[in-house]
Amino acid sequence: MPDAKGTPLARAIARSFGTPAVVIDLDIVERNVDRLQAACDAVGLANRPHIKTHKSPVLAALQRDRGARGITCQKLGEAEVMAAAGQDDIVVSYNLLGEEKMARLARLLREGVLVRPCADNPVAVDGYADAARAAEQTMGVLVECDTGRQRAGVVSPGEAVALARRIASRDHLRFDGLLLYPPEDKMAETQRFLDETRAGLAEHGLEARIVSTGGTPNLRQLGAIIGATEHRSGTSIFNDRMMLACGAAALDDCALAVYATVVSRTAPGRGILDSGSKTLTADPGGGLDGFGLIREYPKARIKGFAEEHGMLDLSACDAEPAIGETVSIVPNHVCVVVNMVDRLVTVRGGEIVGTLEVTARGKIV
Amino acid sequence: MPDAKGTPLARAIARSFGTPAVVIDLDIVERNVDRLQAACDAVGLANRPHIKTHKSPVLAALQRDRGARGITCQKLGEAEVMAAAGQDDIVVSYNLLGEEKMARLARLLREGVLVRPCADNPVAVDGYADAARAAEQTMGVLVECDTGRQRAGVVSPGEAVALARRIASRDHLRFDGLLLYPPEDKMAETQRFLDETRAGLAEHGLEARIVSTGGTPNLRQLGAIIGATEHRSGTSIFNDRMMLACGAAALDDCALAVYATVVSRTAPGRGILDSGSKTLTADPGGGLDGFGLIREYPKARIKGFAEEHGMLDLSACDAEPAIGETVSIVPNHVCVVVNMVDRLVTVRGGEIVGTLEVTARGKIV
Repeated sequence: MPDAKGTPLARAIARSFGTPAVVIDLDIVERNVDRLQAACDAVGLANRPHIKTHKSPVLAALQRDRGARGITCQKLGEAEVMAAAGQDDIVVSYNLLGEEKMARLARLLREGVLVRPCADNPVAVDGYADAARAAEQTMGVLVECDTGRQRAGVVSPGEAVALARRIASRDHLRFDGLLLYPPEDKMAETQRFLDETRAGLAEHGLEARIVSTGGTPNLRQLGAIIGATEHRSGTSIFNDRMMLACGAAALDDCALAVYATVVSRTAPGRGILDSGSKTLTADPGGGLDGFGLIREYPKARIKGFAEEHGMLDLSACDAEPAIGETVSIVPNHVCVVVNMVDRLVTVRGGEIVGTLEVTARGKIV
Repeated sequence: MPDAKGTPLARAIARSFGTPAVVIDLDIVERNVDRLQAACDAVGLANRPHIKTHKSPVLAALQRDRGARGITCQKLGEAEVMAAAGQDDIVVSYNLLGEEKMARLARLLREGVLVRPCADNPVAVDGYADAARAAEQTMGVLVECDTGRQRAGVVSPGEAVALARRIASRDHLRFDGLLLYPPEDKMAETQRFLDETRAGLAEHGLEARIVSTGGTPNLRQLGAIIGATEHRSGTSIFNDRMMLACGAAALDDCALAVYATVVSRTAPGRGILDSGSKTLTADPGGGLDGFGLIREYPKARIKGFAEEHGMLDLSACDAEPAIGETVSIVPNHVCVVVNMVDRLVTVRGGEIVGTLEVTARGKIV
């Protein structure tokens, strides 16, 4: 059998796990965790990392151990996994709706988890009141505000105040604050929105005890929003090609790589990786050229996918990888890649350490 | 709690499973399975459905029970799942490489599974010879041919013949035939490639006992390639928006839908579904406009995604869905959606039947 090619680590990973394999370097992970905590500490913000990036209770515990106030989840199913592993202070940055989810939310409350969901509409608020009443608990709720991203979130300070008042008026609910996800280029608009909202809340005797900002690119502006109390960053624990592109990370800060093997070279200048959209995902990374950065062949372009095929354009390369060579790829968007696999391979100092279960993978509900 | 809105089935699914939920209609599945079998029977081709679409041993068994000769898998991990469930005639339409995979391939051979992998290069062939020798078995190998798709596959009849000869010359290997995946608009080129290859094989006393064609869009040209012996179709069991767009299926033939709930409506003409790229996936479906067809609101456009947010443009709609309403969506590309979930919800005649495990989900290795 021909020897597989690639770096000694790549060869060891291919031999032990086969490829493709999704691999994290624990030294870089720990450095990234500490860097985020230090950045929050430096400006007096609580750190509430978003676990959607790693989906691992082990890494959530690491973040808490190193100073995080609590965690952020995007889905109730993620919060359930994290609560079962001992996380007791969870913001769910999402509108939760429907009786199936309200029954599960009530169960978390009865179990004593400090879980705070978000709302941008009265339907969500009314459901939360039912869930908290069923649990015979009082639950804090955050109002999600849209300051220009056009995703979820009330679009005016007046609506934010009205929704906060609705929350505060309901038995079993407590208005706990505001959740913002400011576009990086709309900090002034975000500040104005926040100031007006806080003034409006004060007129009604309400206060936003939590003002949560979010985003890894926004770490460069951490502390810029006056009145913010905590920050949610997900991607910074691993980083990815999007973070490289926007300057939020350097290549040495990228903790995760997809190890893939060249399985076909049928014509000069092209080749096939055994990693397609089922691993690297079709996420365009906000308009990046191609679908990942091959560290050993930075001039190679992953130009397209089938589910299990990564189409390589090698025409710009100085040297071309051979069939059987295993390479390592920084993906466009790391969060969606983690969600494709049941386990991550962990390495440290160029050696395989073990594996880490992606326990909250696929928790779409 | 406000009543969820939507059709009675949508409400029942939301109540029982929460949303998003990936749902298949078993009546349509069975009709699609029978239609594929009848199409193959009509032109005298063996039916070897590709299980990458459903990833379910239960549905693979249904296909075999209704006449399929065997199955096709794209990855060794899928073949292992299917073999464990009793599938005994499996083509793996992929170059398998590396000692980790060769050890697993040898195990399947020792267990008596008729498994045939593909090769488009000598490295793969040499690995297969080692695996078959280790298993003390003879293994059939197909030569993958590229007749214009520019994915994997040898690009000339001469190379196909040379690789077939290499296979036939190795102890423990048997040249079993050719695997084609003809572009729909290159049937004449494919026929020429096949004819030249068969002539070249004959000169060396070799014969392609299997000539496998593939693709669901290609079903409309089934039988067009003279000398083909079997066909691989995956998508036709469920169909999707790509198959609608190319005319390979009608809406009534779409067996799978993602049920999702509108969770936010913060401005006229826009809204948010609780189903983002983690369920519907960012697969553009070969250049379709938007990321799915909402059956109840066909003029709505799913214009973009976050992982858990589907961004709705409702500006062209006659009526707009309300917060809490559950809708059903035909995704762009059904195979990649199935891979996102651990189970499918099954329905029949507008009633929930149960769930079906996606046993071969995430088998990337």
